[in-house]
Amino acid sequence: MVRILSCHPEVQIEALASHSIAGEEFSSAVGAFRCVADMVCEEFDAALLAERCDAVFVAVPATQSGPLVKALHGAGAKFVLDTGPDFRLKDAGAFAQYYGEEHPAPELLADSVYGLAETNREAIKGAKIVAVPGCYPIGLILAVAPLLKKDDLARSPLIVNSVSGISGAGRSLSEDFHFPEANENARAYKVAVHQHTPEMEQEISRIAGRDIQVIFVPHTVPMTRGIITTATVSLEKTVDQDGLEALYNGFYADEPFVRVLPRGKLPETKNVRGSNFCDVAVTYDPRTERAVAVSAIDNLTKGTAGQAVQDMNILFGLDETCGLWWGAMSP
Amino acid sequence: MVRILSCHPEVQIEALASHSIAGEEFSSAVGAFRCVADMVCEEFDAALLAERCDAVFVAVPATQSGPLVKALHGAGAKFVLDTGPDFRLKDAGAFAQYYGEEHPAPELLADSVYGLAETNREAIKGAKIVAVPGCYPIGLILAVAPLLKKDDLARSPLIVNSVSGISGAGRSLSEDFHFPEANENARAYKVAVHQHTPEMEQEISRIAGRDIQVIFVPHTVPMTRGIITTATVSLEKTVDQDGLEALYNGFYADEPFVRVLPRGKLPETKNVRGSNFCDVAVTYDPRTERAVAVSAIDNLTKGTAGQAVQDMNILFGLDETCGLWWGAMSP
Amino acid sequence: MVRILSCHPEVQIEALASHSIAGEEFSSAVGAFRCVADMVCEEFDAALLAERCDAVFVAVPATQSGPLVKALHGAGAKFVLDTGPDFRLKDAGAFAQYYGEEHPAPELLADSVYGLAETNREAIKGAKIVAVPGCYPIGLILAVAPLLKKDDLARSPLIVNSVSGISGAGRSLSEDFHFPEANENARAYKVAVHQHTPEMEQEISRIAGRDIQVIFVPHTVPMTRGIITTATVSLEKTVDQDGLEALYNGFYADEPFVRVLPRGKLPETKNVRGSNFCDVAVTYDPRTERAVAVSAIDNLTKGTAGQAVQDMNILFGLDETCGLWWGAMSP
Amino acid sequence: MVRILSCHPEVQIEALASHSIAGEEFSSAVGAFRCVADMVCEEFDAALLAERCDAVFVAVPATQSGPLVKALHGAGAKFVLDTGPDFRLKDAGAFAQYYGEEHPAPELLADSVYGLAETNREAIKGAKIVAVPGCYPIGLILAVAPLLKKDDLARSPLIVNSVSGISGAGRSLSEDFHFPEANENARAYKVAVHQHTPEMEQEISRIAGRDIQVIFVPHTVPMTRGIITTATVSLEKTVDQDGLEALYNGFYADEPFVRVLPRGKLPETKNVRGSNFCDVAVTYDPRTERAVAVSAIDNLTKGTAGQAVQDMNILFGLDETCGLWWGAMSP
Repeated sequence: MVRILSCHPEVQIEALASHSIAGEEFSSAVGAFRCVADMVCEEFDAALLAERCDAVFVAVPATQSGPLVKALHGAGAKFVLDTGPDFRLKDAGAFAQYYGEEHPAPELLADSVYGLAETNREAIKGAKIVAVPGCYPIGLILAVAPLLKKDDLARSPLIVNSVSGISGAGRSLSEDFHFPEANENARAYKVAVHQHTPEMEQEISRIAGRDIQVIFVPHTVPMTRGIITTATVSLEKTVDQDGLEALYNGFYADEPFVRVLPRGKLPETKNVRGSNFCDVAVTYDPRTERAVAVSAIDNLTKGTAGQAVQDMNILFGLDETCGLWWGAMSP
Repeated sequence: MVRILSCHPEVQIEALASHSIAGEEFSSAVGAFRCVADMVCEEFDAALLAERCDAVFVAVPATQSGPLVKALHGAGAKFVLDTGPDFRLKDAGAFAQYYGEEHPAPELLADSVYGLAETNREAIKGAKIVAVPGCYPIGLILAVAPLLKKDDLARSPLIVNSVSGISGAGRSLSEDFHFPEANENARAYKVAVHQHTPEMEQEISRIAGRDIQVIFVPHTVPMTRGIITTATVSLEKTVDQDGLEALYNGFYADEPFVRVLPRGKLPETKNVRGSNFCDVAVTYDPRTERAVAVSAIDNLTKGTAGQAVQDMNILFGLDETCGLWWGAMSP
Repeated sequence: MVRILSCHPEVQIEALASHSIAGEEFSSAVGAFRCVADMVCEEFDAALLAERCDAVFVAVPATQSGPLVKALHGAGAKFVLDTGPDFRLKDAGAFAQYYGEEHPAPELLADSVYGLAETNREAIKGAKIVAVPGCYPIGLILAVAPLLKKDDLARSPLIVNSVSGISGAGRSLSEDFHFPEANENARAYKVAVHQHTPEMEQEISRIAGRDIQVIFVPHTVPMTRGIITTATVSLEKTVDQDGLEALYNGFYADEPFVRVLPRGKLPETKNVRGSNFCDVAVTYDPRTERAVAVSAIDNLTKGTAGQAVQDMNILFGLDETCGLWWGAMSP
Repeated sequence: MVRILSCHPEVQIEALASHSIAGEEFSSAVGAFRCVADMVCEEFDAALLAERCDAVFVAVPATQSGPLVKALHGAGAKFVLDTGPDFRLKDAGAFAQYYGEEHPAPELLADSVYGLAETNREAIKGAKIVAVPGCYPIGLILAVAPLLKKDDLARSPLIVNSVSGISGAGRSLSEDFHFPEANENARAYKVAVHQHTPEMEQEISRIAGRDIQVIFVPHTVPMTRGIITTATVSLEKTVDQDGLEALYNGFYADEPFVRVLPRGKLPETKNVRGSNFCDVAVTYDPRTERAVAVSAIDNLTKGTAGQAVQDMNILFGLDETCGLWWGAMSP
């Protein structure tokens, strides 16, 4: 987030709040930003932030952002963008089931908007609280949205497998992500019980206008950034490859950050590394009458911070690509 | 293969044949084997090899092993074990379709045996030509065989996603696997058209006793060894987690190299790295009435050379674990 | 280079010339730039490029840039910036010795300028041809320049070890850099005979005002980007840690892209990844009366393309940080 | 250690003691050993272990092995092999200086032997307590021992740079080794103050028969296993490449685990991965009259557990290669 905002032509970072490094220069804790973002981190103070900042981004673990967003909202903050999961699920019961705690601020759920630009742009425009989507849901929704919008094409459930780099797990230390344990290791985890499942189902059902289930299996692999999401979708009707490609190209014709790849190309995380693009490709398998939709995102850019800034651009009436228009770091 | 055979207590490596490094010490080309396997590589000579060796392992690309196996067989070789795909498919037409050339020795297909010990042990015992299975099919078959054996449980098609290290692509150079291009990159490839698809369908249909299709999406990720295979299987009947676990534990109770993991554990490639084990876990998802079966293998050990040596042990009446019983290189 | 130039506020990319992908969209060959740099690549045409472009960047292998630079210069190109080695060495004989061919354009050596901003800024200002330095020399020179400038402090030779990511070897395929061979592998190569040695000696001797030798041992390690250079320098006089730090802080006080780290911090490539910064730290070892100077750069940014754009900024009188001021991609 | 011992033909693992996983199956904590080493871990009990085991290996952090070794020795243990640093330094003062605590059992220092087979074989034969050397010292000593043995050839100090995989840092979690922080990152650390420095100096001085200093700069790079050590040595006399190679070949002629590489080859960690070999090469640089000696080891095999088992073989009069003679896991 700091990397993107510090280069955004319409943004000035007014304050950085952090409990763990309060009083310390940000760049002392994160050496990558020496000379670029040297400001001293502050303790979180909702009133002060609400007064000084036109927009506040919140990036803390699940169940911890709710109270902060509530405080900011109560203090009159103009716009709050929460990259955590607390305001993504409209159903506080589902939140409690998957995150293991009561929702911290259910009264604000009605006022928050799910911040995926490509599928919810109009709603974002009027929002005070934006729930920046989870990284896996972004990858899935952008991969399958055209299939879902098409009447009676996709059958429930979607079979969804994702392959993720390890930065998606955040900065907390664990044996699983100790370098010698994570290097040269691929694994599935939280098979069919990952907490992003209800978020996926909420949004793809909303897009489809009917209930769609997913069975979701995430995997981690030894890389830092990037998610490949592969959805296998049983189809109600016989289609063909040309038809699916036309559907996708039409659906995303005006979207600056979704690149529908030409036939013969498939998404690769290296082509989106560090960028806000989502690459998408769809393949029809006539043998099994199924579509396979694949997407690639950088989980820390289009998958989190980039999407959040895209939402901010919408909130302020800026061009959506403002401060986000660069190619991937390749190689 | 050399690493395993050079330590096998019942094996002496009599000859190494290689066109590209003929006349050169093997360990000069592959520095890892200096002092361990210094023999000079020979040109391939079927008659000579058939005479000198009790078993010959063939490891060359698709369509190239057929002629070598034919020559060895014709020269009276006692046992030939082919790690390539030429003798895996019983249907020469499917071979031509997926490998792009006419089958090089269709008259030998009837005499060759599919060499997956766990599902074809009795047939291997009497074989002259063993077709060592492909790495992805091994991962899939061991993941789902118990489901398939159970009457009327699994519905066709199986939805199969695999995540593979890059050594599975062999030693040929390509831009895709140039380190800076392959590192920090995950991608899907050959979506629904991978050449291992008919091999998977042939074997799982044989095991199930009815036609089962697969829709298979392979992925590569930045690691050297290992494959995670995740199969999502629609079930005809309602089952439960206890029942599936009992099914798997029973099915593999006497198999030394298949480890059915206890509840709460999932396969990780690091736990099989360099070893001949295949780790398997099955999860029932009551929400979608599907089973998710996951396996982990080292594609160069249980996925190729280790399986080949296990087959050799069977051919010679040795204990199957002979020369193969060691833990993974961890970390 | 394309990544940086496509975001530079004062630059428009007028043409991309490439023989291997002439007639093809650049972004079709390099998927990272889809939508960002879709222009069709042209065959190299010196006259046309000289006419259309205010500056031309040349990025081809050793001995191949000389003829292109000569043609551009002859065609009246205003500014040519060559990222290859052809114009770095003032001594055509040394070029022939280390690059194995006669110099392709020795008559232009006198007109070309070594393009390291921090040590040669004034000369760059009047240049027509800029020889962008090699990645290893940049890492070394910035690590030790303050020691060399100080009268009679550093003894010849400098003992120089570098650890490099693999993108430094370029895009040509080789078995050494096939992913399974390069991954999990560290190695030394070209011990004491690397072609960057005379370039290092030329520049550090020029800075010191006396002949200084280096004995240089490069290493590659399994990462894509980044170089750590560690120089161990025998000192003529007894100094102390405070004195060395003051020397470095003073020397680089006005340099935007060289960050002298505070005591207790050491350069790490992650802190410069994708950025134009060079991090530097110096340690005095009183036991052996030697200084250890360490630097970190991204070999593709400060080590090549970023330095080239910094040079371009100097040539056009722009602020040196223009289009180059962003933090590292972290993590 | 468990991987090696579980395959050693003359060893039976009698007990595994661990406080953190006492009462748990070893293979439950370390999934790689499921079916191979399923025994339940015990609490450490010196008397019980001394009675049941012919040899006890101790592998705990610095300052913690001293008390365990003392207890085992007191309980009459026949042989104790300590992979930690507590008994490597003969000077308890140096231990206190570099490890930050008083030596836990100085009275046993005289009875312990530095366990590097190649330079201390005879002393190991009669030892009760073997101090298995540190990984960096092993890499350095084997790289330079021939130079040191030769009268008046090497000048003090040796300039030593090492590049290490991250498993050398052990299993303790730290932000530095969290995968996203350690991946794609090279760095120097503990410049000239690493705790292996006095161990290096003690042993190389003993071998040389005079005081030799080292200035040691370790680096970590993003790989799991392996150390490259590069020592640059100023020479008293002019020598030539042939002479140095003859010196090395002669010195190591009877050593099974040290492979002096032929001219044109340099050590690479992949060629020793998982094996007990140490690859060594020496290069003479006539320009600077220095030798560059490079070695490669697997820090977890020849660098720790493999060396320990080699010492055990010596203690029991077994062939030194027993249970250790296999090629590297390549790729």
